[in-house]
Amino acid sequence: MAIVLGPNRYGKAETRLVRVHRDGETHGLVDFNVSAALSGDLTATHLTGDNSGVLPTDTMKNTVYAFARKHGVGEPEAFALLLARHFVATQPQVHGAKVSIESFAWDRLGPHSFRRRGDHTRTTVVTVTEEATQVVSGVTGLVLLNSTDSEFHGFVQDEFTTLPPATDRILATAVDARWRHRDDGGDSADWAKSFEGALEALVGAFVGTYSYSLQQTLYAMGSRLLEARPEVAEVRLALPNRHHYLADLSPFGLDNPNEVFIAGDRPYGLIEGSVTRDDAPPATAGWWL
Amino acid sequence: MAIVLGPNRYGKAETRLVRVHRDGETHGLVDFNVSAALSGDLTATHLTGDNSGVLPTDTMKNTVYAFARKHGVGEPEAFALLLARHFVATQPQVHGAKVSIESFAWDRLGPHSFRRRGDHTRTTVVTVTEEATQVVSGVTGLVLLNSTDSEFHGFVQDEFTTLPPATDRILATAVDARWRHRDDGGDSADWAKSFEGALEALVGAFVGTYSYSLQQTLYAMGSRLLEARPEVAEVRLALPNRHHYLADLSPFGLDNPNEVFIAGDRPYGLIEGSVTRDDAPPATAGWWL
Amino acid sequence: MAIVLGPNRYGKAETRLVRVHRDGETHGLVDFNVSAALSGDLTATHLTGDNSGVLPTDTMKNTVYAFARKHGVGEPEAFALLLARHFVATQPQVHGAKVSIESFAWDRLGPHSFRRRGDHTRTTVVTVTEEATQVVSGVTGLVLLNSTDSEFHGFVQDEFTTLPPATDRILATAVDARWRHRDDGGDSADWAKSFEGALEALVGAFVGTYSYSLQQTLYAMGSRLLEARPEVAEVRLALPNRHHYLADLSPFGLDNPNEVFIAGDRPYGLIEGSVTRDDAPPATAGWWL
Amino acid sequence: MAIVLGPNRYGKAETRLVRVHRDGETHGLVDFNVSAALSGDLTATHLTGDNSGVLPTDTMKNTVYAFARKHGVGEPEAFALLLARHFVATQPQVHGAKVSIESFAWDRLGPHSFRRRGDHTRTTVVTVTEEATQVVSGVTGLVLLNSTDSEFHGFVQDEFTTLPPATDRILATAVDARWRHRDDGGDSADWAKSFEGALEALVGAFVGTYSYSLQQTLYAMGSRLLEARPEVAEVRLALPNRHHYLADLSPFGLDNPNEVFIAGDRPYGLIEGSVTRDDAPPATAGWWL
Repeated sequence: MAIVLGPNRYGKAETRLVRVHRDGETHGLVDFNVSAALSGDLTATHLTGDNSGVLPTDTMKNTVYAFARKHGVGEPEAFALLLARHFVATQPQVHGAKVSIESFAWDRLGPHSFRRRGDHTRTTVVTVTEEATQVVSGVTGLVLLNSTDSEFHGFVQDEFTTLPPATDRILATAVDARWRHRDDGGDSADWAKSFEGALEALVGAFVGTYSYSLQQTLYAMGSRLLEARPEVAEVRLALPNRHHYLADLSPFGLDNPNEVFIAGDRPYGLIEGSVTRDDAPPATAGWWL
Repeated sequence: MAIVLGPNRYGKAETRLVRVHRDGETHGLVDFNVSAALSGDLTATHLTGDNSGVLPTDTMKNTVYAFARKHGVGEPEAFALLLARHFVATQPQVHGAKVSIESFAWDRLGPHSFRRRGDHTRTTVVTVTEEATQVVSGVTGLVLLNSTDSEFHGFVQDEFTTLPPATDRILATAVDARWRHRDDGGDSADWAKSFEGALEALVGAFVGTYSYSLQQTLYAMGSRLLEARPEVAEVRLALPNRHHYLADLSPFGLDNPNEVFIAGDRPYGLIEGSVTRDDAPPATAGWWL
Repeated sequence: MAIVLGPNRYGKAETRLVRVHRDGETHGLVDFNVSAALSGDLTATHLTGDNSGVLPTDTMKNTVYAFARKHGVGEPEAFALLLARHFVATQPQVHGAKVSIESFAWDRLGPHSFRRRGDHTRTTVVTVTEEATQVVSGVTGLVLLNSTDSEFHGFVQDEFTTLPPATDRILATAVDARWRHRDDGGDSADWAKSFEGALEALVGAFVGTYSYSLQQTLYAMGSRLLEARPEVAEVRLALPNRHHYLADLSPFGLDNPNEVFIAGDRPYGLIEGSVTRDDAPPATAGWWL
Repeated sequence: MAIVLGPNRYGKAETRLVRVHRDGETHGLVDFNVSAALSGDLTATHLTGDNSGVLPTDTMKNTVYAFARKHGVGEPEAFALLLARHFVATQPQVHGAKVSIESFAWDRLGPHSFRRRGDHTRTTVVTVTEEATQVVSGVTGLVLLNSTDSEFHGFVQDEFTTLPPATDRILATAVDARWRHRDDGGDSADWAKSFEGALEALVGAFVGTYSYSLQQTLYAMGSRLLEARPEVAEVRLALPNRHHYLADLSPFGLDNPNEVFIAGDRPYGLIEGSVTRDDAPPATAGWWL
């Protein structure tokens, strides 16, 4: 028996980049949180501290800022592709690069004034190897609520089941969704349109589904996104069930016809699942869930 | 010398209330985080554990939910007044009640579907005693940024000063503002209109001020609010200066004409101040800063 | 009626300082989060953006690091006094300085190896003006629990009271305590011994008090500290009541003799109070609660 | 092309369990955060909302509390095994169960008094299917620092590299480690001893390694753990490099011989890797990184 090094990677996490694009009086604003991780021939540094194959993580940070000036910053998927390809192309010992970006939206208030929106974070994870490129887009922190059109009953009963069936409840969740693109989109990729369409599909399916379980809503959201966006191969969703408990007001001589709720913190349900196409190309890198 | 009990209060913090108002198919949604604290004749419980003057904090929580059903829930200031007055009026040993509410906004997606907005939290702190009522409204978590029209120079130099003067910088802050109303507004108070007007004044002043210091912007925001809202007596603001450092790209042969910035976390500047009227009625309870 | 500037201050918040003291092979480690705020003649910068009286917050940050080298860093109270006095003494337009420090403890693992302790944060807030000096020490994030010897009954009942009396319950809290010293301690102040003694008194009183209310425990903690530390004039405590709800296992044919509890997040009780000496010198600056 | 359901699971997350074990006057305290997720024949609920195969997440929560009473609560691995096996054994439609536990340590202050330790969280993830059982133990939030005996040089230089070589630096990290056991340990498993030994190995290797890169330290930590604990097949570590930047005090005429540091927040390095045995049995469920 011997002890051996297994899979590994390293990088710089959470480089905070704000890019102003100046078009005369009118400015554009991009606000990213960029993380990069490299893998390849890294055995020496692990076993002996020989760093001759290690590009410093400080250099990765510098590259983010330098590229933001040289190339400008557009859609997060495009910027992540640019960075990931750079590391694989220029460092022979690097065989894979994973670049993750959180993108924060700002609403315009004036030619050079902005308010941070805060209702969701757009995400991307791009993985580039010498053989393949994988682009995943996503959204996190999008909190949705239906105040009716949600039921939950007909479930399994065992000796520990006390939950009464519900024929009208609040359904609320904080959407964490990621979707894998078929390919890298080529030169004609319209990542902004793709993201907006995906987001609209997710929200539309949540709003439009009369739900008998959050699983049903999850599947509706995933399949609606695939229907709307042919460039997407697979969708994965993690949907916390943010429970809203009906307050028992009977001790005070009051009824409560689904009007007054206690918003719970913990525990919460957690529904996780994937929706895919039967002809989807396989993933070329591990991603999520 | 004797050891004695000083000022004290107790209450239930962070009661999470979601109230659905059903008007046929169309629902309204209110999402509050309610904290209540009472003061009065509480010496016995501190000195001997005699609880005969202690209304349980569990009862305060129950009261929040029961009142939400009995009276409905409108503006946070009005709901806080209702609760605070109830505790002082019905408990003879309670001489003061402070009710604080965080209110979370949701955007409508359909007749009974909502998306949490997330760009700011509306706050209120109402303090009722037998002698006086004080209403404070506020906003927190409102993140604003001007990408130009901000300078900072002409400051004091001492032996530890290394900051270069800036003639064009990013000015960004997360507004935490509270404003004290002249009185309880009476029956005709329009708290929603007052809040919206105050928010508009704060944002408008931030956007419209060519700034030589964040202090100047703070004063502009406070005075604009007072000009716009005659019902407000005093404004207090705490404005973190969210530093954006210009990335030094010269080692890479690149210039950086105010385009690529490093968004810093810590440390940050913190500018705190009050703007008031010279004829403002005095505060009747401690509030903030 | 005119709009006027009210009280104000500004400074640099959360300067993160780590200081290594090297005594040959054996190193000491100090880990502080330092915030400084100045007040004085600051009207000009607010009204016109004239910064001729503004020492930049960047300079305050530099001063923290420079002083750490020049003077070394010992107890947080002493370092805060040094900084606050410096700003008031060297800047004629500055009339008051408030320096707050969070101090994080590390356990020693070897001559130059450490593990962050994490069970509490030590705090200090020093306020220096031309007339007076005030030193406040404190602790936050200290989580304590008694699994018995706590009751709660005999409380007020109103129409919204449903809480049953408890004759044996868990009492748990996250101690947030601050105590004001009689004076600045002079040259002989032993801040470390004072803090350790205060902490021991707080913990000892929590453990040793058979409690009929958290208010009773709060008073016991405050008075125990005053008895133990003559240099302290007043103690303020904010004690969240971290509710542990007895799980109802009767649907499963199981009893629950105070053994299985649901640890709740929100809402929580919040007990706040001051314990003081009847001959305590008055506070010379606003502090807390 | 058809849209199809992919892998999925659901469960109850973050059930907060506190268990008091009463042995006369002396009490024991267990503090767990339990999450459970089930997978199996769940297509119906996703496609049509037919919940006839869905054990409610509320039942999972009830089971946690009921088992805590029926069986007591010992080591987290044992409690997770008990729960996971129960779900697979009693629900024919459930083919896999994953139970994750965070365990919070408390120091004893008296027979029934405790202080939360706070310096790390112990974790476990148990995955049970009809074919296999996998037990993973871990630790998170363990913050370690060496104030010397760390160098970093000899690294790759490209056009974006500006980092100077370091021959003496602070090395600090917040250890997030997980290790997979060879098997379920059988009846004789001593999970407590295994965890304590693993923790000691990780800390010992961090302290005892003269480091030329955090990768080298990572490998040392993983291999030391495998050497010490024959029951462990593989270790995975994610080590953020918590940068401490040497403060430049030269503008103030001061040197800085590795004494005064700026503790940075973001960005940070992130080193991730696995250390394994060449004869390790394969993983039977996805776990981490």
